[in-house]
Amino acid sequence: MEKKAIGVIGGMGPLATVDIFRKIVLHTRAETDQEHLRVLIDNNTAIPDRTEALLHGGGDPAPEMVKSARLLERMGAGLLVIPCNTAHNFYGAVQGAVDIPVLHMLRLTARDLGRMGVKCAGLLATDGTVRTGAYQEAFAGTGIGLLTPDAPGQQAMMDMVYRGVKAGNMHFDISEARRAMEDLLDRGAETLVLGCTELPLAFALYHMVYPAVDPTLVLALEAIRQAGGEALV
Amino acid sequence: MEKKAIGVIGGMGPLATVDIFRKIVLHTRAETDQEHLRVLIDNNTAIPDRTEALLHGGGDPAPEMVKSARLLERMGAGLLVIPCNTAHNFYGAVQGAVDIPVLHMLRLTARDLGRMGVKCAGLLATDGTVRTGAYQEAFAGTGIGLLTPDAPGQQAMMDMVYRGVKAGNMHFDISEARRAMEDLLDRGAETLVLGCTELPLAFALYHMVYPAVDPTLVLALEAIRQAGGEALV
Repeated sequence: MEKKAIGVIGGMGPLATVDIFRKIVLHTRAETDQEHLRVLIDNNTAIPDRTEALLHGGGDPAPEMVKSARLLERMGAGLLVIPCNTAHNFYGAVQGAVDIPVLHMLRLTARDLGRMGVKCAGLLATDGTVRTGAYQEAFAGTGIGLLTPDAPGQQAMMDMVYRGVKAGNMHFDISEARRAMEDLLDRGAETLVLGCTELPLAFALYHMVYPAVDPTLVLALEAIRQAGGEALV
Repeated sequence: MEKKAIGVIGGMGPLATVDIFRKIVLHTRAETDQEHLRVLIDNNTAIPDRTEALLHGGGDPAPEMVKSARLLERMGAGLLVIPCNTAHNFYGAVQGAVDIPVLHMLRLTARDLGRMGVKCAGLLATDGTVRTGAYQEAFAGTGIGLLTPDAPGQQAMMDMVYRGVKAGNMHFDISEARRAMEDLLDRGAETLVLGCTELPLAFALYHMVYPAVDPTLVLALEAIRQAGGEALV
């Protein structure tokens, strides 16, 4: 199989872009530099905030996302990934603008949870992802129930993402976020969907240990496979 | 000051490319995604091994490096970095092929050590970097002495880079590498130059603690400044 270059529409946020790049490299079977996959990244920090756009009338992220997608396609990418959950609300515009496949992180996550036999999951995500129903849509018809945090719990998620991870604050107080996660598990969630690309980073930064599925890793593994690499799980 | 996009000629190796990207993001003062710098990366794994080319007649890395440099320039990069020490033997070909500045990691490291008042440093690097004298050349005229490991110590560095880090082997035996580093410090080195981009990763992976300067970090900080960002040291 001819290998393809993986194109990454990045900058949403920059650390999440580092994170998927790292996951692609660490999970590709390779013993030399040359056995690794080519990865092209546009860490495009001109893309406006996705949650602001969806909920507060902020600038439309789609034009800059499309610009990056076309740039990466012209550079030689054979497939594209978007390592930002909320940005998947603009998936249609991006896929419509290029001739190469754009992997859909949320649908791939639903597929993997289905294969694992999960019947009920808790969704941790930003307001933009939760309220627009992007995950609910991706999970529709899969038979997997999705629980979301109560209002203070949802606010705690937003705070942890924006005032914790994105602000680089290692000392952010996570007690409220912990309460929200434990509440989801108490209500019957078998696992937590880390539905914002900053959340796997939050789990690592703040040493949180809960059953969880990382859509960034799901996306990285699928990108490796579709690019013709061997994914190490 | 108008901000510039940082272009990264990557793939040498892929984890070192992840490492400089991560350092650029973590060391840029920014509280939102949009305050970060744009970074364009070509993780070009078609670039042949640099040490093989320099010492054993392997394929010339320059043409693929030049291809990546021109691609990144066309994509909009305002300056370029090469996060691979050995690849700096091909610096002239790359800088000659583009109109934007290509930062020189080894010269920047010499400049920073000079500012710190260091008079003698130990060089940890691959055979290609050590034998071609790339660091010796960058340090010429700075008044800073450079010590290199003895033959078994040099072999231990090569093994740690190729059979340890590049092969993703977390259980690599580092006792010989430790001996080589301690020998350099005993001989008068005030600090160790981590003159291969896989070595900061080796220090982290294998939990080694020695006085050391990380040229990847020196390069990341200078790239942030020249791109118009504020570097957090």
